Formats: sequence, C-alpha cells, structure tokens
Amino acid sequence: MSAEAAGSTGDATAPPPVVILVCPQLGENIGATARAMLNCGLDGLRLVRPRDGWPNPRAIPAASGAERVLDAAGLYGSTAAALADLHRVYATTARNRGLVKPIVTPREAAARLRADAAQGLRSGVLFGPERTGLETDDLNRADTLLSIPANPDYASFNLAQAVLLVAYEWFQADSRTPPCHLATGSSRVATKAEVEHLFEHFTEALDQAHFFPTPDQRGAMLRNLRSAIERMHMTEQEARTFHGIIAALTGRPKARKG
Amino acid sequence: MSAEAAGSTGDATAPPPVVILVCPQLGENIGATARAMLNCGLDGLRLVRPRDGWPNPRAIPAASGAERVLDAAGLYGSTAAALADLHRVYATTARNRGLVKPIVTPREAAARLRADAAQGLRSGVLFGPERTGLETDDLNRADTLLSIPANPDYASFNLAQAVLLVAYEWFQADSRTPPCHLATGSSRVATKAEVEHLFEHFTEALDQAHFFPTPDQRGAMLRNLRSAIERMHMTEQEARTFHGIIAALTGRPKARKG
Repeated sequence: MSAEAAGSTGDATAPPPVVILVCPQLGENIGATARAMLNCGLDGLRLVRPRDGWPNPRAIPAASGAERVLDAAGLYGSTAAALADLHRVYATTARNRGLVKPIVTPREAAARLRADAAQGLRSGVLFGPERTGLETDDLNRADTLLSIPANPDYASFNLAQAVLLVAYEWFQADSRTPPCHLATGSSRVATKAEVEHLFEHFTEALDQAHFFPTPDQRGAMLRNLRSAIERMHMTEQEARTFHGIIAALTGRPKARKG
Repeated sequence: MSAEAAGSTGDATAPPPVVILVCPQLGENIGATARAMLNCGLDGLRLVRPRDGWPNPRAIPAASGAERVLDAAGLYGSTAAALADLHRVYATTARNRGLVKPIVTPREAAARLRADAAQGLRSGVLFGPERTGLETDDLNRADTLLSIPANPDYASFNLAQAVLLVAYEWFQADSRTPPCHLATGSSRVATKAEVEHLFEHFTEALDQAHFFPTPDQRGAMLRNLRSAIERMHMTEQEARTFHGIIAALTGRPKARKG
C-alpha cells in the first residue's frame, strides 16, 4: 500500500538515486558496481551486510579509479535500515515470486526515478546477492519491481552488470547527447556548392580523358557517380584533397580554389 | 567512402551482429563479455590477437554458464581478417581522434544494427584493448563510430561493461517487454465494482463504529479514503482479504461475496 505517496511532499530537491547492494558476496563485484555507477554519474552506494565484511580490499582494483564511491559507501545492518530515509524504492529481480507489485523495465524505472527526483523524492534501487537475488521480504519492501529484459534462456546478469544497466538508463534519461552526428575533426561539413564544384572538376577531367563511351552512358554514369559522392558527406578539407588528387592524376595544374 | 553500400545487397537474412574484441588483455573480461552477450541474445564472438593467447582458462569462471560463446569464438590474426565477411562495422571509442566519421550512441547503433540485419547485411561491433581502446587505423576501418554517453569526469567503461551496453541496446531495440505492468501472482486485478463493494463494506463498518465526527467531515474523509484505496490497484484476492479483515475487526459475520 502506498499511502505514504499522498502524505509526503519530500525534499525541495533530491539527490540522484542510491544503489543498495543487499548481502553482496564478492568484493570484485562491489568494486565493479562502484565503477559502473560513477561512469553513469551515480555515487551513492549502500551496503547491507556484505558477506566478506567491509572495507574489502578485493573491491579496489575492480573499482579502477572509482574508489571515492567505495570510500563513501554506507554500511547497514538490515535492508530496512538502508531504506529508512528513502521515499521510493525499486527492487531488482528476475522473478516476481507471486508478489502483487508493479514491474517496470530499467528504461521505465529511469523515467520514474527522474520524475521522483524532480518532485524532491529520494529514491533507491535494491540489488540482491549474486547467487540468489533478493529475498521475497526485501522485494516486498519496494514500491516497484525492476526486471531487466533478457534472453529467456540465459537471463542471469552479473551483479555489477545489472547495476550498470539501471545506472546507464538513469543517465540516458537525461542525456543531451545527440543520437548521431558527424565528427569532422578540424574541418567542417562541405556545402553543396563545394561538392558541386568538385563534381564539375571531376566531370571535366573524365571528359578530357575520354572516359565515357557514349553520351547516353555519360549521363547515367555521372548520375551514379554523383550519388556516391553525395553519400560520402565530405568535409571541406576532403573536397580540397580530392581537387588535388584530380589535378595530380591528370598531370594538370591544381584546380582553382573552391 | 561507403561506395560498397550501393553495390551490395547482402544476404537474404543476416545473423545478429558479432562482437569483435581487438587485442583484449584480460581473460576475465573475455569471459564477462561472453556472459553479457548471451544475456542479450548475442553469441557471435571474434577475438583478434588476445594478449594471453586462446583459449584462456581465466575466461571460464567469468563466463558463468556462457562457455558456449567462448567455445565458438573465432580467433583472428588481424582486425581486417576479423571484419572481412561483414558489410557494416561499428567501432567503439571514447575519442574520435580527428577521424571524419559519423558517431552514434548505443541506442542509435542498435536501431541501425536491426535495420542492417533486416536488409540482410552482416554487422559487427569492434572493441579495443582495455588500457588504450582501439587504435586509429582500426577505428578507420569502421563505417561508424559508437560512443557511450557517460559521466565526463569518469567516462572509461570496463570492456565487458561496454559490450553489455551495446548488446543490451541491441536486445531492447526489438524487445516486446511492456515498460510497466502489474504482477498479480495467482489473482487478477479487481474490477471497479469489486473495489466499490469493498468501499461500501468499509464505510458501513466505519459508520457503525461512529468513526466520523460530523457529516461534513464524513464526506471529506470518505473522499480521501477512496482516493487511497483506488491508488492501491488491488487484486480480487486482496479485496476479499480486506472484507475478511473488516469482518474480523468489527466482530461481525464475513461480508457477502463481492
């Protein structure tokens, strides 16, 4: 029952979600979790009764530069204690174990975590031990279950890999990165006039070399060549290079500046 | 120049993209890569000059059940050889190193990989060695660069983690998993009539217990209670349980079936 939802207005602003590892077994996975979190801009890690105690030296190499996440990690004696100050909790599981709960994908969870934070609600995501996952009682403390879509024949993710996917989706949900752009190094994208100028130079050279067998074939071949050349999305620098190449191959002076 | 694009129609159908690790250093990362791939339904792994030779016993524990991906992995002496039969290649990098290339996010790459396969084009994704990433010459063999958006202050992903993100996006791009649904165990979602029937039972019990101080307050309080009860999204089983609870608390016979 989420009666608390109506009662709490949360903080004015909320920090990014915390990651809570319940009874993690391997120090390496705790370290790899810290690295994955920091890659995605998360640094709030909480550990509930890690099997091999804490701190664990095996976590350090796997953290690979994200030791500050390990150093700041909170240590808790119970899941309830690790959740106490949070308003919203998501629990990761591959099976819902008969609980009546909403189940979301990492992508939907990310959108909700962003919305929670914008409302001033503090959120956390629970991950269970490597071998068994979260126990039913811990799952039941969550508002929402989080299940990662996976190959049904091989659905068990490594702990740090599961954390990465949740953290990655959280980061992506607010990423301003354009899905695609053209890197042009120190040059810039050529204008259509610059491409046209190159194409004219090219055509002129081919005509002078008697490249085209017949006027009919000339038209068709030029159309195909133009299509290939436009598809290159060349830079201004590349257009100049190709002018130079044509001049060199024909043994004639360099083309006038485009 | 992608002149090959126009010339090749590819196969009638194409397999999922292959993952190509160029000079991977750690067997553990090769194993973890296999696990991440199989989690996301990929099983085509190619290794170019792995530092510690191949097979590598350190890969097995990290593969954690995905050994079949390791067993079927192809071993190559050069990046060119590992790419030779592919039509489209994406190369992962954190830096574009001045190359003039389209750069895409993993999500956009996934959409393109799906589109490539639908056209019958065989695709692969290149990943470089742990310490240095791909060399410029290997990046330049790709059609497209793939860059994972990350925390600008800590952007270096573990090799297997980077593979996971690409494989995960590829899997998600065709996932039929609904972003959110309510798990209801062995029950089903209650109808509005069933919730109404419970609410009436509840109201009746509260009236008989003289719970409401005044008729005005009764109206407002019932409105708030209904709001909380509707928000629970209860199952038919839960509605019956609450009927039983009301009957038990009031010491009166169980409510008639809802």
